[in-house]
Amino acid sequence: MPIQKDRLIERLAALGHIGSTPEGAVTRLAYTPGYRQAEEMVRTWMEEAGLKTRIDAVGNLIGRCEGKMSDAPCVMLGSHIDSVVSGGKYDGVLGVLSGVEVAQALFEDGVELDVPLEVVAFMDEEGTRWESGLWGSQAIAGQLTNAALQRHDRMGVTIAEAMKEWGLDPAQFAAATRSPSEIDSYLELHIEQGAVLENKGLAVGVVSAIAGALLLSARLSGRADHAGATPMGSLRHDAMLGAAEMALAAEAAAMAASPTCVATVGQLELKPGVFNIIPGEAWMTFDIRDIAETTRDKAEAGIRESIVDIARKHGLNVTLEESLRTTPVPLSSMVVEAISDACVELGLPVFRLPSGAGHDAQVMTQLADVGMIFVRCREGISHSPAEYVTPQDAFLGAQVLHEAVVQLGQARDIRRHND
Amino acid sequence: MPIQKDRLIERLAALGHIGSTPEGAVTRLAYTPGYRQAEEMVRTWMEEAGLKTRIDAVGNLIGRCEGKMSDAPCVMLGSHIDSVVSGGKYDGVLGVLSGVEVAQALFEDGVELDVPLEVVAFMDEEGTRWESGLWGSQAIAGQLTNAALQRHDRMGVTIAEAMKEWGLDPAQFAAATRSPSEIDSYLELHIEQGAVLENKGLAVGVVSAIAGALLLSARLSGRADHAGATPMGSLRHDAMLGAAEMALAAEAAAMAASPTCVATVGQLELKPGVFNIIPGEAWMTFDIRDIAETTRDKAEAGIRESIVDIARKHGLNVTLEESLRTTPVPLSSMVVEAISDACVELGLPVFRLPSGAGHDAQVMTQLADVGMIFVRCREGISHSPAEYVTPQDAFLGAQVLHEAVVQLGQARDIRRHND
Repeated sequence: MPIQKDRLIERLAALGHIGSTPEGAVTRLAYTPGYRQAEEMVRTWMEEAGLKTRIDAVGNLIGRCEGKMSDAPCVMLGSHIDSVVSGGKYDGVLGVLSGVEVAQALFEDGVELDVPLEVVAFMDEEGTRWESGLWGSQAIAGQLTNAALQRHDRMGVTIAEAMKEWGLDPAQFAAATRSPSEIDSYLELHIEQGAVLENKGLAVGVVSAIAGALLLSARLSGRADHAGATPMGSLRHDAMLGAAEMALAAEAAAMAASPTCVATVGQLELKPGVFNIIPGEAWMTFDIRDIAETTRDKAEAGIRESIVDIARKHGLNVTLEESLRTTPVPLSSMVVEAISDACVELGLPVFRLPSGAGHDAQVMTQLADVGMIFVRCREGISHSPAEYVTPQDAFLGAQVLHEAVVQLGQARDIRRHND
Repeated sequence: MPIQKDRLIERLAALGHIGSTPEGAVTRLAYTPGYRQAEEMVRTWMEEAGLKTRIDAVGNLIGRCEGKMSDAPCVMLGSHIDSVVSGGKYDGVLGVLSGVEVAQALFEDGVELDVPLEVVAFMDEEGTRWESGLWGSQAIAGQLTNAALQRHDRMGVTIAEAMKEWGLDPAQFAAATRSPSEIDSYLELHIEQGAVLENKGLAVGVVSAIAGALLLSARLSGRADHAGATPMGSLRHDAMLGAAEMALAAEAAAMAASPTCVATVGQLELKPGVFNIIPGEAWMTFDIRDIAETTRDKAEAGIRESIVDIARKHGLNVTLEESLRTTPVPLSSMVVEAISDACVELGLPVFRLPSGAGHDAQVMTQLADVGMIFVRCREGISHSPAEYVTPQDAFLGAQVLHEAVVQLGQARDIRRHND
């Protein structure tokens, strides 16, 4: 068997120690010292796997080996090695290390593909620091702008400043852009981050579509009055009560829109934030997703309408900002077929499911035919130290990826080659 | 006219500059350098008013002048000069400076009372740093404990450490305790912090009772899952949704309990506090007040019941903590009469109203006959830079205080003298 299960598991454990707390939570944010340490570790493993490595203009780590036809568009495997705050060891990392493992298995077996193979660890998929995300894949797809470089993190540091600190020249971000003619297909293996596979008793799933995420933030301004001497009712302009009603309205709107629609208030900050003062200000986020744009639009409209009504009811001023809007993305039937064939080859059931989470794969649809493999994770938990994948499931996922790469790496009438 | 309006207004403005921001908000917390600066300024004015000053064992500033009977229990005037975060220029300060002004008016007019007169600026009435309050008056009433000294502020500093840093010996806190035989009556002038007087078109009110405050905090523990890949409904254990429902339940419980009952969620903190993660933890405060214990108990019971029900519904663990519970306090009919007579004397209508906010006066009922004078403040706003009292209203309030002191300062059959 070409895929080395033990090596894959050992590397997952080793990378999981970087940026981890004693409780096992991983916090490894983009452009931090911990991120560099992780990137250097993966780079060493890529070199062991026979890949020639480079760091591109925004900090993506790219390993490449040429195929028989070195000028052909490549098969690219990727995911990310950054994390959320207090996240787990598998989100993103499993995809990158499975890609490295596939490359190393081919290398050690002396298998040369017809086309080049690339493995990529994308910078800042999570968007934790700058409340955006998919940074590295957007750079490769040529979607970044100068304006995006000026976003501030909570400490007031812009992306441009963080890149400079990291040793990159932010003005050169466009040099990371790749042409569609360079990439034939892109495959990403990822933990499911939901509990559908576990409920079905399946180790691996084939992703059919990726939900689009929409991120709104609302700033509510009321009046900071004395909590004891201001009667309940119309004399209060309580930003906390407004925020509470808006959070519940978002829940209701998502549930009304479709069974796959979700809406989450992940952040809420009150000012002045003192027990005996009515909160005069609140700032909160709304993360709204669905795999169809129509139902997500329906949820968004419901939430926006509720925000206006609730603000009026409490006498609050409200300003809404939209910081991210990605379109739901169907995946490539060619790649979905290749992954399905790989499952059949390995004697695994073929089960297709949508992705509720966003991934670099959705950006890569701009450049290549894209498919995704989901691996079961315990209780569907992710973005948490309780995130867990069994060694056997990780092994099966990497095997599916390996089989799909062997199939996609064969010379064929490659659509984009002559674009 | 003995009370010097211009002097009172100038002193209010001068003290308002200490700890203020360019926008006019005052942040002057207990045991900070800004507090010391304010205390030194008031001490200078007390000396000008003919008072002999001292700082007691917990940092209360006390000015005293003897009366004809220097061993008689005194008439005490007091309030506080600390503030909340981003508060105003009048809360507490108006009472202390009115007291100094009354003393100075008597001194300059050569009026000697039968009994001693004291003016006190109490330390840490607001409780902003340690989420408690009434610190200085509790010290004088002998209500402090060693355990209370060990409370931590948000920076991890205990009250004992802050006192040491300030130059006090925290072990000596009990030396601040006064005996009931030393104090006959206590009068506190304060801004209303509500809009009742403004709605009635009155400058001054006579307080009939002080609401008791009850402070609860709840820590909710759910599960930090991926915001995109976790379907709505029973798979989510969202601490934010739980907190939102609890805040609205507190509002409803207060409104159901009585027209004077209030409940406020002033603080809510989410963990991890990231837009794309379902909040796994929330910490929030409930400030519940009423002027009758039965209706406050009713509101508290309703809130506690809702917290349990809502936590169960969302699959959250909850721990509740009680950090403050003060009993609603009726005031002394003798002092209330003296204040009412003063209003009549000055040609002002006598209007009685309860206090929704807590005051050092409620603690002083343990030692003395207590009364309070409320002065109208614009739109009822307090604990905010928008807090405002007209010079004329401040002047009228100080005149009422002056008249009441002249009356209470006469020798009479003093109840507590022979306790």
